[in-house]
Amino acid sequence: MTIPRAAYPAPFNTTRSSHVVLRVKDIAASRAFYVDAMGFIVSDEDKNALYLRGIEEACHHSLVLKKTTGSPVCERIGMRVYTEEDLEKAKHYFERAGLQAKWAESPFQGKTLHVSDIIGAPLEFCATMDTKPRLVVQFKHHHGACPQRIDHFQIISPDVQRACEFYSGLGFRLSEYIAVDDTDELLFVFLQRKGNPHDIVFANGPGPRLHHAAFSVPDASHILQACDIAGAFGYGNRLEFGPGRHGPAHALFVYFRDPDGHRIELFTTHYQMMDIENEPVRWDLSYMRNRPWGFPARKSWFEEASRFLDVELREPVKKSHPMTLERFLVEERP
Amino acid sequence: MTIPRAAYPAPFNTTRSSHVVLRVKDIAASRAFYVDAMGFIVSDEDKNALYLRGIEEACHHSLVLKKTTGSPVCERIGMRVYTEEDLEKAKHYFERAGLQAKWAESPFQGKTLHVSDIIGAPLEFCATMDTKPRLVVQFKHHHGACPQRIDHFQIISPDVQRACEFYSGLGFRLSEYIAVDDTDELLFVFLQRKGNPHDIVFANGPGPRLHHAAFSVPDASHILQACDIAGAFGYGNRLEFGPGRHGPAHALFVYFRDPDGHRIELFTTHYQMMDIENEPVRWDLSYMRNRPWGFPARKSWFEEASRFLDVELREPVKKSHPMTLERFLVEERP
Amino acid sequence: MTIPRAAYPAPFNTTRSSHVVLRVKDIAASRAFYVDAMGFIVSDEDKNALYLRGIEEACHHSLVLKKTTGSPVCERIGMRVYTEEDLEKAKHYFERAGLQAKWAESPFQGKTLHVSDIIGAPLEFCATMDTKPRLVVQFKHHHGACPQRIDHFQIISPDVQRACEFYSGLGFRLSEYIAVDDTDELLFVFLQRKGNPHDIVFANGPGPRLHHAAFSVPDASHILQACDIAGAFGYGNRLEFGPGRHGPAHALFVYFRDPDGHRIELFTTHYQMMDIENEPVRWDLSYMRNRPWGFPARKSWFEEASRFLDVELREPVKKSHPMTLERFLVEERP
Amino acid sequence: MTIPRAAYPAPFNTTRSSHVVLRVKDIAASRAFYVDAMGFIVSDEDKNALYLRGIEEACHHSLVLKKTTGSPVCERIGMRVYTEEDLEKAKHYFERAGLQAKWAESPFQGKTLHVSDIIGAPLEFCATMDTKPRLVVQFKHHHGACPQRIDHFQIISPDVQRACEFYSGLGFRLSEYIAVDDTDELLFVFLQRKGNPHDIVFANGPGPRLHHAAFSVPDASHILQACDIAGAFGYGNRLEFGPGRHGPAHALFVYFRDPDGHRIELFTTHYQMMDIENEPVRWDLSYMRNRPWGFPARKSWFEEASRFLDVELREPVKKSHPMTLERFLVEERP
Repeated sequence: MTIPRAAYPAPFNTTRSSHVVLRVKDIAASRAFYVDAMGFIVSDEDKNALYLRGIEEACHHSLVLKKTTGSPVCERIGMRVYTEEDLEKAKHYFERAGLQAKWAESPFQGKTLHVSDIIGAPLEFCATMDTKPRLVVQFKHHHGACPQRIDHFQIISPDVQRACEFYSGLGFRLSEYIAVDDTDELLFVFLQRKGNPHDIVFANGPGPRLHHAAFSVPDASHILQACDIAGAFGYGNRLEFGPGRHGPAHALFVYFRDPDGHRIELFTTHYQMMDIENEPVRWDLSYMRNRPWGFPARKSWFEEASRFLDVELREPVKKSHPMTLERFLVEERP
Repeated sequence: MTIPRAAYPAPFNTTRSSHVVLRVKDIAASRAFYVDAMGFIVSDEDKNALYLRGIEEACHHSLVLKKTTGSPVCERIGMRVYTEEDLEKAKHYFERAGLQAKWAESPFQGKTLHVSDIIGAPLEFCATMDTKPRLVVQFKHHHGACPQRIDHFQIISPDVQRACEFYSGLGFRLSEYIAVDDTDELLFVFLQRKGNPHDIVFANGPGPRLHHAAFSVPDASHILQACDIAGAFGYGNRLEFGPGRHGPAHALFVYFRDPDGHRIELFTTHYQMMDIENEPVRWDLSYMRNRPWGFPARKSWFEEASRFLDVELREPVKKSHPMTLERFLVEERP
Repeated sequence: MTIPRAAYPAPFNTTRSSHVVLRVKDIAASRAFYVDAMGFIVSDEDKNALYLRGIEEACHHSLVLKKTTGSPVCERIGMRVYTEEDLEKAKHYFERAGLQAKWAESPFQGKTLHVSDIIGAPLEFCATMDTKPRLVVQFKHHHGACPQRIDHFQIISPDVQRACEFYSGLGFRLSEYIAVDDTDELLFVFLQRKGNPHDIVFANGPGPRLHHAAFSVPDASHILQACDIAGAFGYGNRLEFGPGRHGPAHALFVYFRDPDGHRIELFTTHYQMMDIENEPVRWDLSYMRNRPWGFPARKSWFEEASRFLDVELREPVKKSHPMTLERFLVEERP
Repeated sequence: MTIPRAAYPAPFNTTRSSHVVLRVKDIAASRAFYVDAMGFIVSDEDKNALYLRGIEEACHHSLVLKKTTGSPVCERIGMRVYTEEDLEKAKHYFERAGLQAKWAESPFQGKTLHVSDIIGAPLEFCATMDTKPRLVVQFKHHHGACPQRIDHFQIISPDVQRACEFYSGLGFRLSEYIAVDDTDELLFVFLQRKGNPHDIVFANGPGPRLHHAAFSVPDASHILQACDIAGAFGYGNRLEFGPGRHGPAHALFVYFRDPDGHRIELFTTHYQMMDIENEPVRWDLSYMRNRPWGFPARKSWFEEASRFLDVELREPVKKSHPMTLERFLVEERP
């Protein structure tokens, strides 16, 4: 297998990852977690939905929670394109590729296109949203972990190579990847449009499933503050992994599970990656055993993820045998 | 007058502000300031030049210091385009606009195009540079203020409106601006290509002159650390303005004058601005008198700047009468 | 003149500076400043008084604001002794020294002793207070600048030498001092009981007056956060000095004037000073002109202070001619 | 059993925990860990010993590493008394208590008294040390985790009640303790002289053994910086526990094992505890299962510790069955 290269020019101009729509069982419980503790800003709400944004976002929402009486799945992940003309081009592109793309109405968004990607993950694209004030310096509204903005999604995919090829075809650049040692067999790919390491990440496993949505925080100290405030609000046991330092992309991170088990990552900002000469950074799988510091994630982090609405799960060709915390404690001594 | 709109699509794809070339009288003195105290990384050096980058930059240089026996001027500011094809398009574009554009050789850079902008500021464009390791997590190499990467330039311009129109024509978007109260007379324009508030800023005054080059730092605490380390290395008196909080773009900042009087800004990261619906944010001139906190800059910050090599100075049509620290202390009581 | 040495053993066991009682014109305005913006915790309040503490304090109050229809003066500064027996010893000690000491009732405090010190500053001593929960990790209650605890007072004194001798007699150790160059003439003395650099500081000038009460904050970043939050609540123009780095004792600091003009300092923690071999650190007056970084304080910081209730002002023998920001801007170039 | 109360006045004036003497197999390896990575300052060194201090310490040493060809044990922990007269009083006190106390010579220290405490832990007391410059603001010398100063020791004791009674007799105050639920059976006691929560901590287990020596760091961000720098220097796998937030005393912490397996804690500053009315804070054992956030420590943290030189180990009456990370992963779900 070979490492795909980004189409340039892109068939249409995707600018960034934009938003995620999650189904939740109890809007009040979600609000307590995301708004009171984590510090997201409420853009709109009614008894069936909560539209949230980070403190610096001028877009109406980056996180949408919808009440369900069914399973707490992920409905859809959202991407931004630059213009409505890009939306039209996208529709033609997907249709030529044999993927069904159709117009949809989404509240507070401009014209919206629904399509599922090559591994079956449901996407929506839009060029515009309603705007809201940026609260970057409205310090009265800052609390909790002070999430700034959405940054990326991680998807568990039964075929990482195929996902990588598909998004490369859309013009996403590969910034980093993890491969099986001494091969080009892709296990983790980090793909981006917006000029920092990720907009979307694919990891090998039964999928497609949403592993997490990630939001940036202003400073390293907010990673610890997120933990403290989570503890103060009774969500200490929802901290699943971290605080720690990533290998790929290098950010400080912490992962929480929300009241429905959906996972979010809070992390510090990434480096800039905008120049044509930047080759993707390769990591060997053995890295997973040799983190710069900190223990590996517990098994649940590797195995559990949010199902997508009405999407079948497929097993990956290659089974993973990750270095979980459980394994680590048996195999490694301090 | 009216607020210009960014050409879309751009005539060629400028991706970001890239580097600045400054002439200095004493390379060793500059090295002591920029490397030992401020924490820039040396990519290359000889007795006549010093090529520096920030801790996360993979590009060879973002700050070039060249020894001069003459005046310590700014030679040129640099912009990145995405491909060499964009360079060709740029050459044609400038020539059609009546500006002389010519190929040049610059060490450690790919094919490079020299041109002066509409107000006479000397630019260079390139698509590639040699690469160097990103030192984001090479913590042994982090010290001083830990500058991460170049972010933007501020140019003093005798005609801000005209500069704004020119860069809008290149596809730069206006993110914020300061206008004379109750008019559209532009005094300060913040223009960007890379998706955050600035790549290049123009401020009204005798010019063109380089007011400062700005580099981001990881955390708010690095703003204070920059001051402390400057003090420890004997550069306390080179701190000209700050620590403070900007109105436009909202960053925490501090400004230093280097041993030749060139000015750099260190600041915390900016918000993201990538969506088509984002209108430029307007600030009235009266803002300058009503900062969120902190005293205004002293007179030198408003009046002094680096001349460009062999470029004539022109007076602005409109004289500024800024709220300097000197005025403030007379007019305002605690 | 000679540098006094601390009486050991002390005539009675003063443990730390404890609280300050300020008169204010408008309790609601004071509450908005101290509680809503600065982040002090309310221990008790009624329409005539507000009892505040820092987030880690278990004592009932460290800052008491009382409504006045007269001038907004400082009523009294408070010190803690360890036991009630120490209070008795203190009473005898002061009476033997010719100072009138009398028992008083103070709400939420145990037995309380009132006395004026040798330069006329009104003090009160108590051994106990009512207790309140420490909110160190009650992160829901943390906001604003997160003041942790009271640390010290600064008093402007017409006779610094005499104040220094008096407090040395009480067992206070001199940790640092500023003297006229090449002499032992004391201009600033930093005296302590609790094992860090200050409990009480005396500075030369017309007095006695309370220059400020100082409260510690957890991290360097809270110094900037204090400014940001002050700005957000409309108190940006109450920031009088800083953020900056002190010479003596080395803390990062910021000074605010409250709505009545009383001054508080927020600063980062001090070093420990508990060992008998530590000699006081001497600073020459010329230091004031050569700060590690940052501009000097404006004139108001040097000249304005809170009068003590019903206490006459006396002029110092030696007039100060401090390096104010106003002088600095004239005399020094960037 | 009952909770002991501190003798007041103390039989002699112990002021603070002072230093620890550790035996190590390879001075160069210890230097690489403690100096190059952790950021301790070297006060003196020769090929057989390394004398280290924190960045703000004026005392000659708080951490002494001595080369051994035998086992890497702890030789002794050190306490400060205020005067040499206190040393004499201490000698008499210990002898009256049936403990052998004898004068000893220790380099860079004044007159030194050796004695073992009631559970057999070897102590030394001194009133003075040689002094060294405080490097609080010598930012050129700050690196790594920037340890500021020694704060406390934790000792594993086979009889926590007896240790608590002994140190209470010396005038140590109990600030917090963990007891078996619904009893006064002490499992963890936090004792202090210097006015913050701990100088010495005893935890139930086979002992006496030194569990760790703890050093404070300036800011929360240094806890993460300590991890990052440890990783950068190849000591990532020496991180045994954390970053996390303590229940008792509330500090942020991280624990490392040095190249010989000795354990140090880096933590953020503690609250002040100086007032007579402050009762010790009780925690139930069940707390160990309900941390505010973060996983429990792995088994090694509970079981491994540094032996004291030539001191027999005794089993505790009560076996502990702590909530280790290993147990937690089996018993608790995210």
